[in-house]
Amino acid sequence: MRLHVPIPLRWGDLDAFNHVNNVSMLKLLEEARVRAFWQAESAVEDIPSTAVIDAGLDTDTLTLVAHHEIEYLAPVLYQRDPLDVQMWLSKIGGASMEVCYEVYSPAADGPVLVARARTAVVMASAETGEPRRITPAERQVWEPYLGEPIAFSRG
Amino acid sequence: MRLHVPIPLRWGDLDAFNHVNNVSMLKLLEEARVRAFWQAESAVEDIPSTAVIDAGLDTDTLTLVAHHEIEYLAPVLYQRDPLDVQMWLSKIGGASMEVCYEVYSPAADGPVLVARARTAVVMASAETGEPRRITPAERQVWEPYLGEPIAFSRG
Amino acid sequence: MRLHVPIPLRWGDLDAFNHVNNVSMLKLLEEARVRAFWQAESAVEDIPSTAVIDAGLDTDTLTLVAHHEIEYLAPVLYQRDPLDVQMWLSKIGGASMEVCYEVYSPAADGPVLVARARTAVVMASAETGEPRRITPAERQVWEPYLGEPIAFSRG
Amino acid sequence: MRLHVPIPLRWGDLDAFNHVNNVSMLKLLEEARVRAFWQAESAVEDIPSTAVIDAGLDTDTLTLVAHHEIEYLAPVLYQRDPLDVQMWLSKIGGASMEVCYEVYSPAADGPVLVARARTAVVMASAETGEPRRITPAERQVWEPYLGEPIAFSRG
Repeated sequence: MRLHVPIPLRWGDLDAFNHVNNVSMLKLLEEARVRAFWQAESAVEDIPSTAVIDAGLDTDTLTLVAHHEIEYLAPVLYQRDPLDVQMWLSKIGGASMEVCYEVYSPAADGPVLVARARTAVVMASAETGEPRRITPAERQVWEPYLGEPIAFSRG
Repeated sequence: MRLHVPIPLRWGDLDAFNHVNNVSMLKLLEEARVRAFWQAESAVEDIPSTAVIDAGLDTDTLTLVAHHEIEYLAPVLYQRDPLDVQMWLSKIGGASMEVCYEVYSPAADGPVLVARARTAVVMASAETGEPRRITPAERQVWEPYLGEPIAFSRG
Repeated sequence: MRLHVPIPLRWGDLDAFNHVNNVSMLKLLEEARVRAFWQAESAVEDIPSTAVIDAGLDTDTLTLVAHHEIEYLAPVLYQRDPLDVQMWLSKIGGASMEVCYEVYSPAADGPVLVARARTAVVMASAETGEPRRITPAERQVWEPYLGEPIAFSRG
Repeated sequence: MRLHVPIPLRWGDLDAFNHVNNVSMLKLLEEARVRAFWQAESAVEDIPSTAVIDAGLDTDTLTLVAHHEIEYLAPVLYQRDPLDVQMWLSKIGGASMEVCYEVYSPAADGPVLVARARTAVVMASAETGEPRRITPAERQVWEPYLGEPIAFSRG
């Protein structure tokens, strides 16, 4: 099962080549992770059931990125429509998880896969900075999203 | 009459003080201007009638910011809900316009005014870089949004 | 008397128009303020005597931006050489100060004034979030930089 | 042989966790690549001999990032001193190259390795967007920097 998080572009995500900058794409993935996995005050209806990490202001948890890998398959131009960031988990460890992504850009003749990525995230205590175990409650809501590791088309 | 453009926050808009950074707020206003005034490919329904500037890829027009003034009235925390960026025009000149903004943050007991701003924008030819006149078509769709200049509460 | 802080550009400061983005310019001014007024661990020699605000990690002070005004006088292209951000203070109040800036870009035939700006900064207690008084020590090192308010060439 | 490019931090590189944000680190690597490999107008003395790609304004070449991999070894706090970004090439192909990085943060008791990364860059014609061959002149100045692929400590 996959999480689908729509992430709107900003014109400011473009670089001087007039494409969404490769680093900006990782900001979009960061925002997708936050919306998929973090608690946050909201009046909106569509908070995913997976959004259970208390990682906001006065947080208990720091979610530390240990590793990223990303490949870019097509340039992305500015558009009003959000990108469709699809996420699943290839691993849920004791204190860490690996998030996999496929990013689709809407187009007249159907969505285009523009990027693939994976991120290793370590849960740490905001107090001590030390890794803290993933809780049973977190594990329970995340396990349905376990899937295959992402395959990159090139090294 | 005001334009209302919802602009979602990103966790990355926060700075080390854990508030939306004062400079990030101007990125949000930039995106609100782009969505209010620029043409852009989209499958979405809610493109404002005012979005007529051809300022995208292979653009005819550069919209150059000549002047910004902004005051910050309340800190903004990260939230899932978009900010409500309200815009109107205090001036439509020969080749420039002044955009005024009030930015509201949603809250349990009603929206909170978090920032006021104004931006002077000059239309320039992408070819020559020289100012180019606002077209009758642009003027026609923008005139309904003419209003009073914004008043700042402090210098 | 003016503070001169060299601020290197990043290619990422450019936007799709291939100029330093108008919002990025305010990030450069933010960095100039931090280097001019904040304490920070360093092995480098040239920390200004004005850098006395304890506003780093585990900070005592939040420096809150209350107001910005900026005008853009010339486009800035990417270059290896830092911009020369010149700063002075037009006011030192009880708990706030106003920083004025002139930003110069190096060029073959002498520096070019590319932007003028002013920022109202309020000192607040990191604990309470309430404004806190500027200390005598801060006032003493900052007073030599008191000068005229900046004059903008247009509204 | 390695290229050493000093990259100053900005306070704005920090995120709400008060560390240099993991995505910001990739902006620092982008700037290191630009300063190492791109031509750019400058009055400064220390332009590396490897800076030969015509990828600036009115450019001939687009340098497209095809792939990034990065691991984070230690949190980086804001500091006045630049990071030492060390780069070498693990491959120079027909139209692409792989850049490897080790990023060191200065500290009282010696530099600390804070990140390792690699980036696959494809040279493309700015006119056609198609890959273009690495020139003999580029190959000649880059070959001395060929070295082993970087080894990551974890997947």
